[in-house]
Amino acid sequence: MESIDAETARAWLATAVAEARAGLAEGGVPVGAALYGADGTLLGRGRNRRVQDGDPSAHAETAAFRAAGRQRSYRGTTMVTTLSPCWYCSGLVRQFGIPRMVIGEAATFHGGHDWLAEHGVGIVLLDDPECAAMMRDFIARRPEVWNEDIGR
Amino acid sequence: MESIDAETARAWLATAVAEARAGLAEGGVPVGAALYGADGTLLGRGRNRRVQDGDPSAHAETAAFRAAGRQRSYRGTTMVTTLSPCWYCSGLVRQFGIPRMVIGEAATFHGGHDWLAEHGVGIVLLDDPECAAMMRDFIARRPEVWNEDIGR
Repeated sequence: MESIDAETARAWLATAVAEARAGLAEGGVPVGAALYGADGTLLGRGRNRRVQDGDPSAHAETAAFRAAGRQRSYRGTTMVTTLSPCWYCSGLVRQFGIPRMVIGEAATFHGGHDWLAEHGVGIVLLDDPECAAMMRDFIARRPEVWNEDIGR
Repeated sequence: MESIDAETARAWLATAVAEARAGLAEGGVPVGAALYGADGTLLGRGRNRRVQDGDPSAHAETAAFRAAGRQRSYRGTTMVTTLSPCWYCSGLVRQFGIPRMVIGEAATFHGGHDWLAEHGVGIVLLDDPECAAMMRDFIARRPEVWNEDIGR
């Protein structure tokens, strides 16, 4: 798979950040995601909807994956997310052979991206201050919702 | 966590099998699941809905988890499924601290249940002939749908 340049990674992350901001405005967990195709087409985007829809299965990555609909193959795709993926979302990426992830930050939550890297997934970790600030503020304000969201 | 007797495991599996049969009758991937609470209450049940809803995120286990709605804790719960869980569903079980799985069969697909066992999840594998027959027939009839469902 071709590598992506920093500008592309940042532009794709902006889509996920827009989803996270929208989730925050709705009172939800501010994690957003987007699935991009091999040719750079946006296949699907989504955000955590635990609070908004009462749906514990709607993590950002699974929402973006769902929005992309049925795909014959995930070859060359990139899952972009504002936050390091939990085991649930890491398992999604591994099972469907999504070969790359762009991750906004892993400072507020360190999920399964090392495990994915061990299994051949390309990881681009951007250490984005806005992503981290949104999560840090949310965790301070709504710790019980955040803990529920990651089964803690 | 208390262990469960064979009769309880069989009774719980019957709920998942009923979901799988319903999925088969709808033309879908015949995998069903159910989430049971610590006191034996049925919290949620569901089936793979890739074909029916065009939703690739709706695996049996994630559908049952979704149907159970928001839960403060998964302590003492059991995820029951007709088929060994893929990485996506295995990650769900690990992330949310679901402490036990009852699995109909792992002969037609060997997913992540060994990994879950390594991480402390109690695994009850029943080697059920009806579960295996449903999958074997479906894979023979619709190999392209099955391969799509597991990202192969």
